[in-house]
Amino acid sequence: MHIPGYAGKRVLITGGLGFIGSSLAIELVESGADVTVVDSMIPAYGANLFNVEPVRDRLHINYSDIRDRYSLEHLVSEKDHIFNLAGQLSHIDSMRDPMTDLEINCAAQLSLLECLRRINPEIKVVFGSTRQIYGRPQYLPVDEDHPIRPVDVNGINKWASESFFRLYHEVHGIASVSVRLTNTYGPRMDLRSNTKGFLGIFVRRALQGERIDVFGTGEQKRDFNYVDDVVEALLRAGQTEEVYGRALNLGHPRPYSLNELVEILAGLADFTYARKEWPEDRKKIDVGDYYGDYSQFRKATGWEPQVDLAEGLEKTVDFFRRHGSHYL
Amino acid sequence: MHIPGYAGKRVLITGGLGFIGSSLAIELVESGADVTVVDSMIPAYGANLFNVEPVRDRLHINYSDIRDRYSLEHLVSEKDHIFNLAGQLSHIDSMRDPMTDLEINCAAQLSLLECLRRINPEIKVVFGSTRQIYGRPQYLPVDEDHPIRPVDVNGINKWASESFFRLYHEVHGIASVSVRLTNTYGPRMDLRSNTKGFLGIFVRRALQGERIDVFGTGEQKRDFNYVDDVVEALLRAGQTEEVYGRALNLGHPRPYSLNELVEILAGLADFTYARKEWPEDRKKIDVGDYYGDYSQFRKATGWEPQVDLAEGLEKTVDFFRRHGSHYL
Repeated sequence: MHIPGYAGKRVLITGGLGFIGSSLAIELVESGADVTVVDSMIPAYGANLFNVEPVRDRLHINYSDIRDRYSLEHLVSEKDHIFNLAGQLSHIDSMRDPMTDLEINCAAQLSLLECLRRINPEIKVVFGSTRQIYGRPQYLPVDEDHPIRPVDVNGINKWASESFFRLYHEVHGIASVSVRLTNTYGPRMDLRSNTKGFLGIFVRRALQGERIDVFGTGEQKRDFNYVDDVVEALLRAGQTEEVYGRALNLGHPRPYSLNELVEILAGLADFTYARKEWPEDRKKIDVGDYYGDYSQFRKATGWEPQVDLAEGLEKTVDFFRRHGSHYL
Repeated sequence: MHIPGYAGKRVLITGGLGFIGSSLAIELVESGADVTVVDSMIPAYGANLFNVEPVRDRLHINYSDIRDRYSLEHLVSEKDHIFNLAGQLSHIDSMRDPMTDLEINCAAQLSLLECLRRINPEIKVVFGSTRQIYGRPQYLPVDEDHPIRPVDVNGINKWASESFFRLYHEVHGIASVSVRLTNTYGPRMDLRSNTKGFLGIFVRRALQGERIDVFGTGEQKRDFNYVDDVVEALLRAGQTEEVYGRALNLGHPRPYSLNELVEILAGLADFTYARKEWPEDRKKIDVGDYYGDYSQFRKATGWEPQVDLAEGLEKTVDFFRRHGSHYL
């Protein structure tokens, strides 16, 4: 991957010690950007200082929370780009502690926009959103015209924030785009969490030789993006005027069922595997099959995912075999 | 109007000293309900103690803010119904002070739902939402399938709250319905505010013989609901199981243009009238023509507006001629 145009640019990444944020930070540093990562180090959210080890001496790390307006005001000034990836990511945690999800995924985003409007309205913003806003798909693949009907608090707050970014573009001219991420995996993903979706859990259990529990039939389909593809998508989004003011899907041309995912993992590691009934609280917020239509994003930015699930999982397992002590 | 079923019921009305809340409170007291009104008395929001004068000795008034979780916890316990009408209503103020709008119209609503879930999950909730969530109509009349694309912060926060109410119905079984109000007018409306839409301003200026400025051509159409009709709609909503979990439009079978509205007012009062260019900040959040399709709500509840604009404005002007000292 090489996306030109970031060399010499001052870039802020919120959630920059997390999985996707740190992967983006490494790429940007290697592209010659002047990178500051902001992270609140909330234990459950997946920040890990080891994530930026390859570029540790070539970026600025600032420990702070995006809910803290005043430090944020200082941090966004004199920046060219912000990749806004800080967030509470767990759907199930958003139901257990909805007010915290609202503060981080909704209120802090509006506060950030107010700050940008006053202090740095020329900045370009890429906001990390989620396919969760659609809720249970009414048709597949899900495109951006699909009704918005989130099945959890996280999806509602994320949609509200997307709307704030769109509105501040329309009314105040702030260049921003919301990128609706789907299931992202790869090196540096959070393996410790039990509440951020099945992918991290499956990879951890595969690596540790434990039993993987698949809820339901295992036939539910998902689209999986390897992190390098997502990083490239975010970088392209930040430089494509055509996408400003919009909220667009990522996706992958080949969806896989959970059973297929487990089969691929079984070729890479030794573990057992069992089907389980849905736990009650998860069942209520499960969306069934999901895969997205990303043709609008492809058309606007030229992005196309390069890594298929088998290749990506192999790289992922390999990374964690080498660096597992920092993640398990 | 007589909606049976509220006699002896314990009812909480948030925003209960405001225009619609107080009108509802009077009706409920007269129907034999045990009514508590909650109001924060924020000056700009239109609360007025005189609003409940006719039933002053027959209801409980509690001064508190819905952002105050602990008092709210106490207030919702042992209630049968809550009519949740407290809110920041001004679209333009939501752009000038977005964080306050978020706190009241979004965060406080989620906090209320958490409180209901823990303390009184059997309660029935009617949430006062707004047609503003749709943004600029893509077709008319606007039905509930219309895309959600608010043009101001208020609309985004209101949609988020509607979604929280829907979600808590689906996941936690809380009986709630969001009623999407359109332009409501009548006795007790806030005449002092200059930022809560043209209706209050027009009526005030007509009564005071001042000049009414209409922005644009004046041909933009709106649907106008007289407050008694809205009160009836809310009361029906609170007793109709079929609407729980839904968000439904109100509306009126006969939309009027602003010019028509001014003509009707001209038959009731002496004032001058001028067309003006749109002020820049209002233009950006104006939605053009709007009128809603309320057939889903009608079908579910039997509600049909009874009062046409000419009759309603006459009653309104008459009320304020008698009680103007409390409102002007």
